[in-house]
Amino acid sequence: MSSSSVNLKAMPGRLTSSYSEVQASRLDVSLPLPSVLKSSFSVVDGPKSSAAGNPEEIAKLFPNLFGQPSAVLNPGGSSVLSKDTSLKIGVVLSGGQAPGGHNVISGIFDYLQHRTSGSTVYGFKGGPAGIMKGKYVELSAEFVYPYRNQGGFDMIASGRDKIETPEQFKQAEETAKTLDLDGLVVIGGDDSNTNACLLAEYFRGKNIKTQVIGCPKTIDGDLKSKEVPVSFGFDTACKLYSEMIGNVMTDARSTGKYYHFVRLMGRAASHITLECALQTHPNITIIGEEVAAKKQTLKSVTDYITDIICKRSELGFNYGVILIPEGLIDFIPEVQQLIAELNEILAHDVVDEAGVWKKKLQSQSHELFEFLPPTIQEQLLLERDPHGNVQVAKIETEKMLLQMVETELDKQKQEGKYKRDFLGKTHFFGYEGRCGLPTNFDANYCYALGFGAGALLHSGKTGLISSVANLAAPVEQWTVGGTALTALMDVERRHGKFKPVIKKAMVELEGAPFKKFASFRDEWALKNRYVNPGPIQFLGPAANAINNTLLLELGAQA
Amino acid sequence: MSSSSVNLKAMPGRLTSSYSEVQASRLDVSLPLPSVLKSSFSVVDGPKSSAAGNPEEIAKLFPNLFGQPSAVLNPGGSSVLSKDTSLKIGVVLSGGQAPGGHNVISGIFDYLQHRTSGSTVYGFKGGPAGIMKGKYVELSAEFVYPYRNQGGFDMIASGRDKIETPEQFKQAEETAKTLDLDGLVVIGGDDSNTNACLLAEYFRGKNIKTQVIGCPKTIDGDLKSKEVPVSFGFDTACKLYSEMIGNVMTDARSTGKYYHFVRLMGRAASHITLECALQTHPNITIIGEEVAAKKQTLKSVTDYITDIICKRSELGFNYGVILIPEGLIDFIPEVQQLIAELNEILAHDVVDEAGVWKKKLQSQSHELFEFLPPTIQEQLLLERDPHGNVQVAKIETEKMLLQMVETELDKQKQEGKYKRDFLGKTHFFGYEGRCGLPTNFDANYCYALGFGAGALLHSGKTGLISSVANLAAPVEQWTVGGTALTALMDVERRHGKFKPVIKKAMVELEGAPFKKFASFRDEWALKNRYVNPGPIQFLGPAANAINNTLLLELGAQA
Repeated sequence: MSSSSVNLKAMPGRLTSSYSEVQASRLDVSLPLPSVLKSSFSVVDGPKSSAAGNPEEIAKLFPNLFGQPSAVLNPGGSSVLSKDTSLKIGVVLSGGQAPGGHNVISGIFDYLQHRTSGSTVYGFKGGPAGIMKGKYVELSAEFVYPYRNQGGFDMIASGRDKIETPEQFKQAEETAKTLDLDGLVVIGGDDSNTNACLLAEYFRGKNIKTQVIGCPKTIDGDLKSKEVPVSFGFDTACKLYSEMIGNVMTDARSTGKYYHFVRLMGRAASHITLECALQTHPNITIIGEEVAAKKQTLKSVTDYITDIICKRSELGFNYGVILIPEGLIDFIPEVQQLIAELNEILAHDVVDEAGVWKKKLQSQSHELFEFLPPTIQEQLLLERDPHGNVQVAKIETEKMLLQMVETELDKQKQEGKYKRDFLGKTHFFGYEGRCGLPTNFDANYCYALGFGAGALLHSGKTGLISSVANLAAPVEQWTVGGTALTALMDVERRHGKFKPVIKKAMVELEGAPFKKFASFRDEWALKNRYVNPGPIQFLGPAANAINNTLLLELGAQA
Repeated sequence: MSSSSVNLKAMPGRLTSSYSEVQASRLDVSLPLPSVLKSSFSVVDGPKSSAAGNPEEIAKLFPNLFGQPSAVLNPGGSSVLSKDTSLKIGVVLSGGQAPGGHNVISGIFDYLQHRTSGSTVYGFKGGPAGIMKGKYVELSAEFVYPYRNQGGFDMIASGRDKIETPEQFKQAEETAKTLDLDGLVVIGGDDSNTNACLLAEYFRGKNIKTQVIGCPKTIDGDLKSKEVPVSFGFDTACKLYSEMIGNVMTDARSTGKYYHFVRLMGRAASHITLECALQTHPNITIIGEEVAAKKQTLKSVTDYITDIICKRSELGFNYGVILIPEGLIDFIPEVQQLIAELNEILAHDVVDEAGVWKKKLQSQSHELFEFLPPTIQEQLLLERDPHGNVQVAKIETEKMLLQMVETELDKQKQEGKYKRDFLGKTHFFGYEGRCGLPTNFDANYCYALGFGAGALLHSGKTGLISSVANLAAPVEQWTVGGTALTALMDVERRHGKFKPVIKKAMVELEGAPFKKFASFRDEWALKNRYVNPGPIQFLGPAANAINNTLLLELGAQA
């Protein structure tokens, strides 16, 4: 095991001797592989690809890669890959944790062990910065073992740096040359996979042999397409949050006097919130994409919640559970407008106690500001980032909504429309879901993604994202291949230049998961159809369940 | 199924058809019983009992029950109970939820089904108020079935009312007479079991046939004694919190830049925090009982945390996990003093902006107030209960400590003693742990507690708490009996009168669990010995593990 100037002290390897029984029980589980990966296969190209949008611009940005076909692994065939090849492969984790990342690395490692001879895997430490700075560790079977089927990204750690500037590409090139890298696997989200494709293009353009393959990672579930049905980690995170939500529901029903406002991680998209709703059947679920599509205001969201609480009260239910996506505020245009105005005003003016400064707000924004609870007003005025901007991410949306609902119900009580005492509790489920032990699904899926990435590199591919599909079938029947990253791309104009982007997959209001939710939500609102999914099981009948979103989307495509 | 004027709409029965796979898989699990309960047994009395303290006063308060022996079930024997008996038994859930309550009720129900003929079980609805108001439901096999091995208290719901005044005892008497009750099982914490004993005494004193048996319930783990080794729900709650803590630890280690301040439910006692520490090995754990014993101040607790953060920083670790018990503030005398002074001052004076009012604080309290973060100062001044008192329970201790640590580290940074940017995140794990699916241990323990309670009633006992022991052995070898509730009691003087109390069992600094923790905490502080217990399993090798606290306490007694 070699390593270049890495602070190994700060990343002590794991000791399996101190593992819990459950952790230990996961170490030696032998994972099923798709049958195509279990014997000899050939890698077959599909038709020429295009782009998700603006193909002319994508073609200009990726002159060497644009149009290349996606690839699929077929059993047997004539072009069976040689076992005598010896490859030097790097792997890097990029961005936030998602359960299963360690299994992707195990999959790559095992592929090379079984299907090539004398290959080497380098783990770049701390994300893309590890590539640029040449910080890596050479993986051995002993080094990889403690991380098999375990959560977290701590085997080699992750980071949020990007390879962007010409100097940074040059640094990556130097590392690739120094290590004589045949290939690099980038495990990350939409941005990281875009970055992976730019690096593939750069290497190809400079005739550097290093191939680059991406892997779809994010608990948020917003990196997906027809060929990449789901990003890994989504399944585990949603099941962990749903376990907690289910428990809170049982508590709400048993206690009979609290409304629980639960905010869920997931960034801009509401996939996690939608999936948790499908798993647990809450009384109220706010989906950001719907709020945006209906151009709802904060007041109308509040009214929607308040209205259901009043109706439930009439039925004798003075408790409930409400799910709120982390990114809700981003979907409400009036809030964005208010924040823009505040940033402008606060940059130039003093906030006087008497509130004269508020006259500078446009009337709609002024009205909205007055509608906000005092603690949120204060947060907007006081908590600023180093650039002096309002810190939207720090707003605890669940507390804000609770307070607005409280105020509204107080009003209705005075008018005699609501007769009970309203009691609310707030929760934020986030960090506890990013690093759980991967579910059987995520463990298997990630292992196949890694194994498949190894096969793609072995067959000389670059600029593809590892794609494992047919996921509703038993693992043996899963398909394995690689999708041209350029085929997933569109461009965005930033600072007058076209930038390639893999567009975030938002919740589709016409998609099967949302439609199922929409068809049930009125029933869930007034009747109590709570489901407690319970803790993730690794053995027994429930252990191999797959999340609803994926199943419904696959069904819709079939 | 009959029921008296209960709003059944507000308590819809559960539909197993909508259960998750894990919920459903738990329904038909056949639970192991201690072997003494599997065939014929006789109930054998022990020696005359006394009280935990002030036996003369307890004798005066319980003239009919004081001194009665505890009982134990022995296999076989001559005084085998008749199967022809027909009993009418009531059951009530009292206080906060704890996983396993439904299994206690199933245990009582099944005992009566198997060991008596034509018996009836009434479930009093919504806690002790259900007894006083005569609100109940008659339990049938179909009614009980959906709740088997499920979390929550919603089968009959719970409540916090107490039977205290002479009128309320009279109401309970009327219900007992109306239903011709032979017995009543009170499932609750220390207060509820004290109440159960008072009711047993009352019935005995008035020659009413209704016997009363208690069952030890509370996730907080503070109701225990030599005969009652643990309260039910503690095992499940600690495992649920530890699952989350373990995930946060993996996240902390993977991300490498956050300190997570985790506050844990558990009221006054720190049992839950201690058990979670033993399960997960956090860097820092604050135990309230130790803080009190060492007469620590808020400043010294802050310094302890800050010191470890600085040392870890020198080792290259800029992340960590800190556990804080819910009841911490109650253990710090200076905080109690400040709050008492604030209550006094705020009752009479206006809080002027200039802060002149602060001159009324004693100097130590003034100093402490100034040491507190502004948001906490504000909370102390603004958030008052209906009596005008400061709401201590609403203080988010984890946020308070985070802010104080932040301020202290800023100071040290200016002095050049700390060189990093400190980033903190806060969590409160509470409601999501009270209603989880019971672990195998809690499911088995509760079923035995209920089955045993049935046997005690069947044999004519009253004023006992169902006691299942030898819990480190396989279930078959568990012992079953009843402990005289008066033997657990002491008195407290309230409003000039002696009141009986079962003293809360606090963390013993000389006990085996704390000692084990204390012997490891320095290692855990600086090295990273994180353990991720993973999700609770119902099958497989880890499914039957028992919590550390119980095992260590049993070992210490052995």
